[in-house]
Amino acid sequence: MKAHQLKLYNTLSRQKEDFAPINPPFVGMYVCGPTVYGDAHLGHGRPAITFDTVNRYLTHLGYRVRYVRNITDVGHLTGDADEGEDKIAKKAKLEQLEPMEVAQQYTDTYHRDMALLNTWKPSIEPRATGHIPEQIALVEAILNEGLAYVVNGSVYFDVLAYNKRYTYGKLSGRVLDDLMTGSRDLDGQGEKRNAVDFALWKNASSEHLMKWPSPWGLGFPGWHLECTAMSSKYLGTQFDIHGGGMDLLFPHHECEIAQGNACNHRDPAKYWMHNNMITINGQKMGKSLGNFITLQELFTGKHPLLEQAYSPMTIRYFILTAQYRSTLDFSNDALRAAQKGYKKIINGLRIVRSMDYTPNSEIALDGEQVQQVEASITAAYRAMDDDFNTAMAIGHLFNLLKKINSIFTGQLQSAS
Amino acid sequence: MKAHQLKLYNTLSRQKEDFAPINPPFVGMYVCGPTVYGDAHLGHGRPAITFDTVNRYLTHLGYRVRYVRNITDVGHLTGDADEGEDKIAKKAKLEQLEPMEVAQQYTDTYHRDMALLNTWKPSIEPRATGHIPEQIALVEAILNEGLAYVVNGSVYFDVLAYNKRYTYGKLSGRVLDDLMTGSRDLDGQGEKRNAVDFALWKNASSEHLMKWPSPWGLGFPGWHLECTAMSSKYLGTQFDIHGGGMDLLFPHHECEIAQGNACNHRDPAKYWMHNNMITINGQKMGKSLGNFITLQELFTGKHPLLEQAYSPMTIRYFILTAQYRSTLDFSNDALRAAQKGYKKIINGLRIVRSMDYTPNSEIALDGEQVQQVEASITAAYRAMDDDFNTAMAIGHLFNLLKKINSIFTGQLQSAS
Repeated sequence: MKAHQLKLYNTLSRQKEDFAPINPPFVGMYVCGPTVYGDAHLGHGRPAITFDTVNRYLTHLGYRVRYVRNITDVGHLTGDADEGEDKIAKKAKLEQLEPMEVAQQYTDTYHRDMALLNTWKPSIEPRATGHIPEQIALVEAILNEGLAYVVNGSVYFDVLAYNKRYTYGKLSGRVLDDLMTGSRDLDGQGEKRNAVDFALWKNASSEHLMKWPSPWGLGFPGWHLECTAMSSKYLGTQFDIHGGGMDLLFPHHECEIAQGNACNHRDPAKYWMHNNMITINGQKMGKSLGNFITLQELFTGKHPLLEQAYSPMTIRYFILTAQYRSTLDFSNDALRAAQKGYKKIINGLRIVRSMDYTPNSEIALDGEQVQQVEASITAAYRAMDDDFNTAMAIGHLFNLLKKINSIFTGQLQSAS
Repeated sequence: MKAHQLKLYNTLSRQKEDFAPINPPFVGMYVCGPTVYGDAHLGHGRPAITFDTVNRYLTHLGYRVRYVRNITDVGHLTGDADEGEDKIAKKAKLEQLEPMEVAQQYTDTYHRDMALLNTWKPSIEPRATGHIPEQIALVEAILNEGLAYVVNGSVYFDVLAYNKRYTYGKLSGRVLDDLMTGSRDLDGQGEKRNAVDFALWKNASSEHLMKWPSPWGLGFPGWHLECTAMSSKYLGTQFDIHGGGMDLLFPHHECEIAQGNACNHRDPAKYWMHNNMITINGQKMGKSLGNFITLQELFTGKHPLLEQAYSPMTIRYFILTAQYRSTLDFSNDALRAAQKGYKKIINGLRIVRSMDYTPNSEIALDGEQVQQVEASITAAYRAMDDDFNTAMAIGHLFNLLKKINSIFTGQLQSAS
């Protein structure tokens, strides 16, 4: 097999680039994980399977991958304000809603679903609440750079000041002037100098259940900050791959780039990878549209839109039948087709395992057969090397299956 | 069935007490979890199964249990000092040993092993590294009480000062004077005023890989402190049950009581429960004795002392054949006996499920049979109510099995 020149599409440069890790054979990869305040759904399944494939393929090629995927457990749960603070204060700890109990429950079900989808566990799975000192240190660093300001116990990133030294919007291709114009009509700018500014640290109201002391008073970290804190802690201030769903590209990843540059004067990641979205029967998925399907509903078939249950491996296979940057439409027809396709692949694997390939075997392959088999394998690798094109790779596997079936039938015939 | 008056042995009072939770129906239970820098072994299996049984039984009785079990991931890993600081500083982040990657690996294998042992997940599984601000706040509170002192960037708990206001040693029954006498000969007292003092915060050396900023400089929390921080955060400053292995009674739990009183002027837990130790062929388990058996070695039979593999449920059953406060000796003979016993119980369960108990059934039970069945069930409950005496409860289940078998045989005979 020839050496692999893996290419991947870098959202930052908007083109396919040769993959060259900063410090081979090591590869550092950070992927945005779930917010654990609800069941995992299709929107969690696709990035998990996409970056699991990246992790497995890089590992297969010999890279030593450190794969970090966070758990966002800083919830925005509030206590029952109607009861009044006095009454809440009198309540025993055990009677009160404990955000970490909710977070633990959904972390556990997320782990269960990810195991069912046959994804490898990340090397490190840091929790946002577990990195409060690191996040506070980053806020202080950004304040020291003059790129943030404090208002009423909250700290905001000053996007206009940042944009004088760096380029805000370079990942998403958004232009700050347009963002400013577009956001002028928005309400609720509140304490921010500009609507484009974003919170690094938020002052906590008395009903807010998760809060920590900080130099700016009791509060909690802004959402964008945790990924900067955890990626730099475990992968360094500049690492190889940052992944996530396309919905996170703006503002989340844009803000991570801004935070990284503000603190460390360099882009946090060399390659940015984004998987595309999933649609359901051609429509965007959303709770209000009634087409929001959790993974457990898929696995059990218990959802009005589902005509049957689909196994986790059918879902995994289905997601991989599209290249990760393509949109993917879920429908019962498409899932049933995937179910059949997956079965064929697995049957092919069983046949291969039952075949006798030893050199001394009476049933030897002829040169042409060997060539055809090798051509399909090489083509499948080439597809994977082309920005992890699993759709093409699966196509080549099907060619391989046909070949295997015909060789197997031939073996059976000459054996009988 | 009669109302249950559960009794449990409270290590603190050295007697069996009626169980009366502070705020029923809620029960807060904190159990010391694993240090995730090695494979889970028999010493992890017993407390996990013991307190899983407590959790399940309390839940069965109608209590609403919040079960918190921590992960100790503050490792004492150090970098390679021989390389010199300069060389280490030049190493890329990804090339360096990352303690959290090690901690994650052993957290994952611990979860796998605990799932195989069929234990319920805790309601909250907090990590020590995830609660640094909370631990720093506790150190500050103890310093404010005048019960700790700072030396060279470390903070120590002042046991003598504490003992003037409270009683140090009341859980373990150790007397401070004796401890002072016993420890006078010990070397390495170092910066501590007295050998009985313990670290709340340790100054980190340059090779130390896990460290955080604090009012006393870069350092890391003392081991005893994390449990006080996490139990009070998630269960309140006084909760119902604190559990752990007997090896943790002193000094770990003694120090937790001291820290709790120093901060909150009350004992942290109402009931202290300790499971006894496991011996192997009559010997204490220890790495130097070559009889240190991991759970995976038990499940696979891959250890020189094991004559076969034992299923996780055999191990669970075996551990429950002793009351948790008794010592338990592992041997191949005892495990094989457990394998048979567990099989009998499961077969009995299958028979019960296949039997026809409906009131209109042609094969009805006579009054005496009903009475005998109910007597065994009541006796099993009474055993559980008596400090979770699973050994006795299993005995009564065997009586029940005999009865079931004879009724089943009778059914078969009258049906034929």
